[in-house]
Order: sequence, then C-alpha cells, then structure tokens
Amino acid sequence: MTLANLGPDVAVATRLFDRLARETAAADGRGVTRDAFGPGEQKAHDMVEAEGRALGLEIAKDHVGNMYLTLPGADRAAKKIVLGSHLDSVRNGGNFDGAAGVLAGLAAVAGLKAAGFRPARDITVMAIRSEEAGAWFPFSYVGSRGALGTLPAEALAIARQDNGRPLLDHMQALGLDPEGVRQGRKVLGPDNVAGYLELHIEQGPVLDIEEIPIGIVTGIPGSRRFRQGRIEGEYNHSGAVPRKYRRDAAMALAEFAFRMDEAWQDLEQRGHAMVCTFCRMGTTEGAGFTKIPGEAMFELDVRSVSMDSIAALYRAVDRMIPEIEARRGVRFVMGPESGSTPALMDAAIQAGLARAAEALKVPCKAMASGGGHDAAAFAAAGVPSAMLFVRNQNGSHNPAEAMRAEDFAQACAVVTRWAADTAG
Amino acid sequence: MTLANLGPDVAVATRLFDRLARETAAADGRGVTRDAFGPGEQKAHDMVEAEGRALGLEIAKDHVGNMYLTLPGADRAAKKIVLGSHLDSVRNGGNFDGAAGVLAGLAAVAGLKAAGFRPARDITVMAIRSEEAGAWFPFSYVGSRGALGTLPAEALAIARQDNGRPLLDHMQALGLDPEGVRQGRKVLGPDNVAGYLELHIEQGPVLDIEEIPIGIVTGIPGSRRFRQGRIEGEYNHSGAVPRKYRRDAAMALAEFAFRMDEAWQDLEQRGHAMVCTFCRMGTTEGAGFTKIPGEAMFELDVRSVSMDSIAALYRAVDRMIPEIEARRGVRFVMGPESGSTPALMDAAIQAGLARAAEALKVPCKAMASGGGHDAAAFAAAGVPSAMLFVRNQNGSHNPAEAMRAEDFAQACAVVTRWAADTAG
Repeated sequence: MTLANLGPDVAVATRLFDRLARETAAADGRGVTRDAFGPGEQKAHDMVEAEGRALGLEIAKDHVGNMYLTLPGADRAAKKIVLGSHLDSVRNGGNFDGAAGVLAGLAAVAGLKAAGFRPARDITVMAIRSEEAGAWFPFSYVGSRGALGTLPAEALAIARQDNGRPLLDHMQALGLDPEGVRQGRKVLGPDNVAGYLELHIEQGPVLDIEEIPIGIVTGIPGSRRFRQGRIEGEYNHSGAVPRKYRRDAAMALAEFAFRMDEAWQDLEQRGHAMVCTFCRMGTTEGAGFTKIPGEAMFELDVRSVSMDSIAALYRAVDRMIPEIEARRGVRFVMGPESGSTPALMDAAIQAGLARAAEALKVPCKAMASGGGHDAAAFAAAGVPSAMLFVRNQNGSHNPAEAMRAEDFAQACAVVTRWAADTAG
Repeated sequence: MTLANLGPDVAVATRLFDRLARETAAADGRGVTRDAFGPGEQKAHDMVEAEGRALGLEIAKDHVGNMYLTLPGADRAAKKIVLGSHLDSVRNGGNFDGAAGVLAGLAAVAGLKAAGFRPARDITVMAIRSEEAGAWFPFSYVGSRGALGTLPAEALAIARQDNGRPLLDHMQALGLDPEGVRQGRKVLGPDNVAGYLELHIEQGPVLDIEEIPIGIVTGIPGSRRFRQGRIEGEYNHSGAVPRKYRRDAAMALAEFAFRMDEAWQDLEQRGHAMVCTFCRMGTTEGAGFTKIPGEAMFELDVRSVSMDSIAALYRAVDRMIPEIEARRGVRFVMGPESGSTPALMDAAIQAGLARAAEALKVPCKAMASGGGHDAAAFAAAGVPSAMLFVRNQNGSHNPAEAMRAEDFAQACAVVTRWAADTAG
C-alpha cells in the first residue's frame, strides 16, 4: 500500500453535515445553534459518537466532555496524532465553523481504516467542547484547555451569557467531572501528542477572493478586549442645550471609534497587521428622541499575531481618551480587560502539509489566522500544532456561511495524506 | 386698584405641583410619566379641572381634549388672552416641563380674581394635550394644532410609540371627538385670541449658568429630523476579515456622526446657531461579540431658528454620505424625514413682558428657544404669541429636572402683570 492510494471517505462527512444542519437547526430556522455544554452541542456529540461507533473506532471521553475517536496504532504507547476541532456553534451560526474539522478527521480515519491502513501510532479524532467564547462562556478554549490541564478552576464559575448559569452547573447537568478541572487534570500534552491538526473554514474572504482552496496557517492572533466599555456624559434636552454646554456620550463614542479606525489604518500603513472592531456600540436604554445621550457603551476587540502591534494601538487609546474626556466633559469607564496571547503554528507540520498539498496538486497559501482557535491552546501547552484553512463564502458566525464540497474534499485529502505520512 | 397691587397666588401652583409629582409619579418611581391621551395626562387634567372649579373659573373643553379655565372679562366678545402650556410629560420626565405654564396661568388668574380684578377681556388658562412628540405621538403639537384647526386628519392614524395604538383610539377612549379633527374644526385663532403666552422652564443651562431668572423668547427653532436612519454593511467575523474587505456599519456610523459634529462646529464658528444630536445611535440586534457589525441605526435631530442654517448642515450630509458609502462599502438609508419650521415670537408681547419684568425688577434676557413649544403652533396660525422661560437646573425630560420656587414666583408675577396690563 502506498500513500497515493490512501484517501478520505468524504461521504462520511457529507452525511454528518446534512444531519447536523437538520438536527441542530436554530429554533427560528436561521442557521444552526449548537450551544456549548447545552443541548445543541450535545446533539452534535451524539451524532459524531454514533458515526464513530459505526466506523468501529475506539471511543473515549474526558472529564470536561471532549470526545476521542481513535484508529489504534501498532504502538499504543507512542505519541498520537490528533485531528480535532469544536462542535459548538454561535447562536444562528453556520454549519461548518468547527464541525468541519471534526468531520474531516472522521473522513480521514474512515478512509484509512477502509483501506486497511494500520498506523504506527494512534490517530485520534477529537470533538472539542465550548470554543465559541463570544457566544456562550466568555472564556477562551474551555474544552481544549480542559483536556490540556490549562483551564483555571475559576472557569467553573463563569456564567453562560444567554442563561446566566455557570459552567459548573452545565457540566454537572451533563454528568461530567468538574473536580478534574479543579485538580488541573491533564489528558493531552506534549508527552502524549506528536501533533495536533485542526481543519477549519477560513471565516474570512481572503482565499475566496484570491481563488485558492486551502490555506496553511502560520499563526493565531492574540487579542486585547474590552467587552463592557462605557462612556458617561449627561442626558439633556436635544434642543435646549448649546454645543458648549453639552456632555454628549454618543458624540464622544463616535469620535473614539472614528479615531481608533484612523489609528489602525495608520499602523497598518506602517506594517502592523491587526484588526480592530467595535462589535457592539451605541447609546443605551436611557436614550430617546429629543434627548442628548448621557451614556454610551462599546465592545472593543483588537487582534494581531503580534502583541507589539496590539500594544501600539492601545498606546493611541491611552493618548486619545483623556483628550476626548477633557474636551467633551465625559468619562470613559473601560471595564475589565480580557484577551489571549498569539500562538505560532509548528513549522514542521506546516512543511508536511505543504508537501502533502503539493503531492496532491492542491493550491495552497501560507496565511495568518484571523480568529482564535483551539490550536492556540494546544500550541500554548507545548503541543506541535497546525491548522488547515478551507476556502469559504459569506464569512462565518452567520446562517449564510458556505463551503464548497470540492474544496472540503481537497482539504480532507491533504489531512489524510499528512496523517498517514506522519503516523505511518 | 393699581397694577402694582395685583400679584399671582403662587400657593395654588405650589399645591398642584406637589399633587402632580405624587399622583403622576412614574411606575418605577423615577420622575413622572404623564402619557399623552393616556391615564397620566388625564390625571393631570382632572387635578387642574378640580382646582379651576374650586377657584370658580369657567371650564370648557374642546374636541381634542384641551381644557380652558376662564376668568371672564367685561366684554365676552373681545379677543381673549390665553395663558397656556401642555400637561403631558415624557416617560420618566420631570414635574415642571409643561405643567409649569398651566400652573402659572392658574396662579395668575387666581391672584387677579382674589384681588377682585375684573379684566376687560377673558383671560383663559389653557391645558394643552400631547406636546411631547418625542415620547408619545411622533407628530408636532397635536393638542394646540387641534384647537387651532391646523392638525391634519392623517394625525388620527399616528400610533403612540409605546403601545402602537393610533391617536384615533386614544381620543375615542377618552370620549373626545375625532370628527372635529377630520373637519378641521377651529376653536382658537387670530380672530378670537389677542395673545398667547406660554411660560416654560428653559430646559437648557443658559439662564442658570448666566444667573438670570427669566428669559423672554425671541423665536422657536424649526427642525429637520431623521428618526429611522440606517446604515447597511455586512456582518462578518471580527478576526478573520482584513480591513480592506470589511463593510463595517458601526465604523461608518462613527465617521458620519463625528464628521457631522465637525461640520456643526464649523458652521457655528461661521455664525450659524443650531444644535445637532444623534439621540439614539448604534449597532442593532444582529450585532454580537466577535462580529463585525453589518447594520447600524441612528436618530438625527437638527434644529435652528434659521432654516438656512439647517440647510447648510444638510448640504454637508449630502456631500459626506456618498463619500463614506464608496470608501466603506456601506449604504445609508435615511428613511422618512420629519420636522417643523421656525416661529418668531410677537414683538409687542416681548416688549410688554420686558416692561413688566422691569417694573417688577426681575432680571431677564432675550433668548432663542432650543426646543419646540406649542407657542410655535399658535404663531404659525397667526396668533400673536410669546414665551417666558424660567431658569431651571438639570435640564428637562429627566427625573432630576428642577426649578427654584422663587424663580417660578418671579416669573408668575411677570405673567400676572402682563395679563392684567393687556386685559385690563
């Protein structure tokens, strides 16, 4: 048997994509909702588990509810290959963000198993819990850090944003083992994983615009975020207060966002790669027609693979705010900061993926990730990690998210080739 | 009897202010809520009516529910003096905006009646319906235009913003006569009103900052308003889409508001007096953390006593929008425009008020109004109209709205002196 004869069983993935779209459809029919540690995510886990059983894979679960579907290797003690991603989605999200990586892993091991391929080491498909921190638990990489022993015990107290119930409750309701989190239990790490590979839709328009089906990720950005920013001014009559006596929180917000946009543009022109987004922003419930707004809110998300670039933008913030406060008679309350540090992808795996793509004649491009991914948690824990991006349309985190079947099939072929090469 | 012996009975007003504050308190205890053509406004009318009866005034009501409390003159056919204002408030508003003008009128006629003063012509206190167009029916001067016969029949279909029920329903529920509106029935006009005087809190900080108790209003601004402005962009992942591929509606809104603020400042420096307010603005319900906002909304309120100044600002809008649209890949949808034309106050009444203030040694200042008032509807209908502003604190349309009792008493004295002089 030569590597050239080994390919993925893409039909396994196609079938599961269809079932996932149908059975985790959002209640209002717009896209899918697979809520982390909730019924939506659990349905996806159950479907993947059933498929894994049908394929005859070994199935295991850890204390935080991640699932492992393993094609056993000849040496069970050798460091394994992990092909993984998350199964949760945002509310009213698309069907591919997350699930594509798990289903690609299943397609790869199904293809290898069907061909009678016996790897030297275990190849494990990993279905990870709770990655969509923006949608559910506002805490990075809950599932993968749980497995890697790097999830702090405080995470158990974090409330899910939609229902206010803490992670602890959600884990107990699913019969999981929060005690493992408290003890820092570690089931994956550099000592037992040779490489972690995560296939994921790009989520951005770059591959689509540049007409390249797959991207090999060089790094995952870090972030500095303010999710509860507020500007305090003074409510007043919109007709009766002359400009000089106003303390208009909305105009202060407009100036802040506009000048941040200018500072970002300026830094980009000087070679800094980053993104800056006011995800939500505006007046608050006290506002009304014929009133000058006395309060405004904002959520600020700044990301870059370089913490230096992020710091450069926040230096502009530090200069800007006191100046706006003094001139407009308002006060900024930035609130708590959160964020993550950037993660570089493993050079050897990137090279292996490039070789596999070349052998299969699949055009590819080296690119930085825009979003955060579980691969960042693996890299931070010292596991050699990599990501393969698949061209997609209409962005992600929305019902219109799309991915062409032929692009996915090509990406699965690269994953399978790399896994067979590395584990074989 | 000389004019110098005639003064207001301020205790009548003080008593009613207390009752109004108590009995029209908002459900959540924050300020007052006197909803137009609803229970809050009706309670205020009932209280004023009871007080008028106790004072022995003639009481009448018109087809739209305005109430008239009259101290009869010697010549019942002569043109009357009207001292009026509105009794509705915004939701969670202050106790003085509107009510002060009605209660000042009552204090004046109570004082005149108690002194045995018999005017040559009727002096009528008018309690006007539904002035707070920003809070209830988004239609200017419903009550006063109803009385003046200038309220279009289409107003009957306008829905109250909080409950969606049209004016017609509200009028019928109160036993009023919508047919009068359809017929353009007119109960007040230049043929039967010699002068309309409206006392009102300033609603702005100018008198307070300049330490002057009363202002004599020169004019009421017109406005051009967009209450349903939208910006359409594209929702996308906040990490994965580089700057050049974004269509960020929030950043487009920030630039629009910031540049409007700059254009306003620029026009002011060139001598244009106006105000420009984004009353509500921001991302909409589709927004979320880790998303680029694909939609933003704004409410824009531009006012000036000069329509030319307003037009100058909107010329800047017309230049700005196509440029922002092209550069940011967004689309502005301004939605329906509403507004009003400016109204100049009657020069003879202004002079009479200044003489009264001088005789009483009350410092006063000529000033333009910031907000719109029923006096604008009277002026537009050809009735000689004027306004007296009373210094107030903490603005208006909020629970902290305040007015010193001594300032109100001085203003009542000016109103009483002017009414006695003009009707005597």
